[in-house]
This record gives sequence, structure tokens and C-alpha cells, in this order.
Amino acid sequence: MDRIIDSQLEDLKKLTLEMGGLVEKALASTTTGVLKKELAQLKEVHIIENKINELQIQIDNACLQVLAKQGPVAKDLRLILSIIKINTDLERMGDQCVNISHIGRELIERKFSNSLQDLELMFASSRAMVKASLDCFVKMDVDAAEKVLGMDDQVDAFKKKINQTSVANMKTDIEHLQDHLDFILIARNLERLGDHSTNIAEDVIFAFSGKDVRHGSNDQ
Amino acid sequence: MDRIIDSQLEDLKKLTLEMGGLVEKALASTTTGVLKKELAQLKEVHIIENKINELQIQIDNACLQVLAKQGPVAKDLRLILSIIKINTDLERMGDQCVNISHIGRELIERKFSNSLQDLELMFASSRAMVKASLDCFVKMDVDAAEKVLGMDDQVDAFKKKINQTSVANMKTDIEHLQDHLDFILIARNLERLGDHSTNIAEDVIFAFSGKDVRHGSNDQ
Repeated sequence: MDRIIDSQLEDLKKLTLEMGGLVEKALASTTTGVLKKELAQLKEVHIIENKINELQIQIDNACLQVLAKQGPVAKDLRLILSIIKINTDLERMGDQCVNISHIGRELIERKFSNSLQDLELMFASSRAMVKASLDCFVKMDVDAAEKVLGMDDQVDAFKKKINQTSVANMKTDIEHLQDHLDFILIARNLERLGDHSTNIAEDVIFAFSGKDVRHGSNDQ
Repeated sequence: MDRIIDSQLEDLKKLTLEMGGLVEKALASTTTGVLKKELAQLKEVHIIENKINELQIQIDNACLQVLAKQGPVAKDLRLILSIIKINTDLERMGDQCVNISHIGRELIERKFSNSLQDLELMFASSRAMVKASLDCFVKMDVDAAEKVLGMDDQVDAFKKKINQTSVANMKTDIEHLQDHLDFILIARNLERLGDHSTNIAEDVIFAFSGKDVRHGSNDQ
């Protein structure tokens, strides 16, 4: 039997994926902007973030409408609550990209010359994690979501490494202290992108299995 | 006419306030721990954070039950959705306190001697903002919530000041570089506490007036 709510839930999923696509685009522009020192790409991030903000409000409104009109229960309700939370995380991820793009612009304007090797690896690692968290939502794949949770360790390890290297560099290259500090701050923003991806994966697990895995909990 | 949902909404509000109270307690311990260099207070933050995490799951479950069993609409639905979001913000605020307490512990173990003047002001400013955001929720006061939004500028100004002073100190007092860097990181965590308070105030405005003020929007 076709239910009205099924097409509405499909619409909500599509909007969420559109939002996820925008975040991936913002992160791609952020990455190229910083690593290739392209200011135009960093400006682009702000344009994308505006669209992310608009879509956030649209998705919240759409969820509210379905909740009010359909009074969903069980897995339908779990899916909508997960979408509301994922929507919040995606918007914050847009903010992280904007934060990084601000720092990147200042680095480029100061003609920074830090080695980009570790940062490049960390960008790749964070982007892979963001992509994996969105993929498990599209595929409604709980096993894949559980794997996303394990990806956070690598992102954290890169943050730690960049932190250590940058602190060491600050001491020996005091002239470029702000550049090294900025690398620490970029790494922290990328770490938070990883944290938001973890949240999304946890929401996917909750939506499609009913398990609440936050804080090591296993409540049904 | 008494409605079943009214007592359920009251219970949800009480749980949210309990959660807010724990966050204020965690932030009080964090503040004393760092400013008075008391390690025991910083350890206490972790104990409180565990309670915050448990309560987060309890509140989400309770909201899910009310949504599933009562199929609320209009302002009841808005209140529940706001509580779900506020709950998420409060849990993250607990994380910020834990982050600061980690940094604080390392500072104390290194016997840091930075001036605490600006940080003390910033702690006070952030705590006032957190308190104001919880107060407007308790009182269902939309005007007060709008005032909370304006408090963020002061918190941001303190972050900027601590950032500038710490960068300058790093250059002239390289021996204590990590201490000055840690002050920058604490200020960033306090700034994020302010951001979460802003989110809570926005949710209060939405819950009790129906206005969505995020991103300068005024959608009804």
C-alpha cells in the first residue's frame, strides 16, 4: 500500500542529500583554496554556505510539516528526528568550512610557506569521513555507518601530528608564528568536521536500526 | 481542559532544565578549576559530563515517546523540536567544558603563570550568556531570548583580545609558548559555549513565538 508519508519521507531524504552535497562542495572549495592557495575558491565557500543556511531552514520546516500533518511513529518518526539532527550537523559543517576559509585567506595574504603535506592528508581524511557519513545515509546502511565511527581516530591522529609539528615550528620559526598557529586552528576545524560526521553516522544507525550508540550506549 | 500532553511537556521542560543545571555546574567547576588552579574541580567536570550524556539520551527518548504517542501539533510540536535541539546543544556544551578542563589540567601541571585577568572576564561573560539562555527557556521569554543573541558580541570580543595578547606573549615568552597557546584554545572553547547559548536562544524564540530567526531569517 502506498502511503502519503512515503513520498514525503523521500522528499526529506532528497533535501538532506542536497544539503550534504552542498557541504561536500564547500569542503572541496575549502580544500583547493587552502592547498592550492586559490582565493577565489575560498570566496566560493561563502556563497555555498548561504545556500546551506537557506536549505537548513527549508528542511526544518519540511520536517515540521510532516510531523504535524502525518503524526508519524516508529521508524518514520526516527527517520525524521535523525534528519532534523543531521540537518543541524550539516549546517555547522558549513560553518567549519567558512572558518577554515577565513584562516586560509589570511594565510594566503601573508604568503605562507608551511609544508602542506600533513594538512593535505588531513583534508583527505576528513573529506573521506564526510563522504562516508553521507553515503551511509543514502544507502540506509547501518554497517557502513558503524565503520564511519572508526574513521575518527585517523582524523584525530592527523590533528595531533599537525599540532605537534606546528608547536615545534612556532619555537624555531617565530617570524611565521601566526602561520603555524593557523595550521593548528585549521586542523581543529577539520577535527570538528570529523566529529559532525560521527554524529551523522550515529543518527543513521538510530534511524535505520533504532539503536542509540551515543556515549557507548546501546539503548533500543 | 487538562490535556495529557501538558504534563508530559512539563516533564520534558523539567528534564531540560535539569540538563541545563548540570551544564552550569560543569562550567562552574571548569571556571574554578582553571582560575583557582584546582585540579579536583577539573576532575569533577568529567563526572558531571557523564551525567549530562546519560540525561541527553533520556531526554531524546522522552521526546520521541511524546511525539509518537501524542502526535502533537503547532506550539506543542515546536516546543518538543526545540527541546530536542537544546538538548543537543547542552550536550556539546558539556564537551566544551571537558575540553577546557583537559587544557586546564595541563596548564596547572606545567605551573602556568599567565595573567588570568582577561580569561576571568571571558569566563564570567560566557557563564552569564549560558545562564541567560537557560533563564529565557525557563521563563518562556522571547524578549529575553532576543537579548541573549546580542551577548555574543562581548564573548567574541574577549576571544579576540585573549587571542591577540596570547600571540604577542608567544613571541616574547617563547619558553611558555604552550601556555599562551592553551589560553587561545580555552578562549575558543568559551566562544563556542557562547555560540551554543545563541542556538538555545534561537530555539526558545522559535518554540514560544514561531519565529525562525536563524541566519537573519524571519520565517513564521
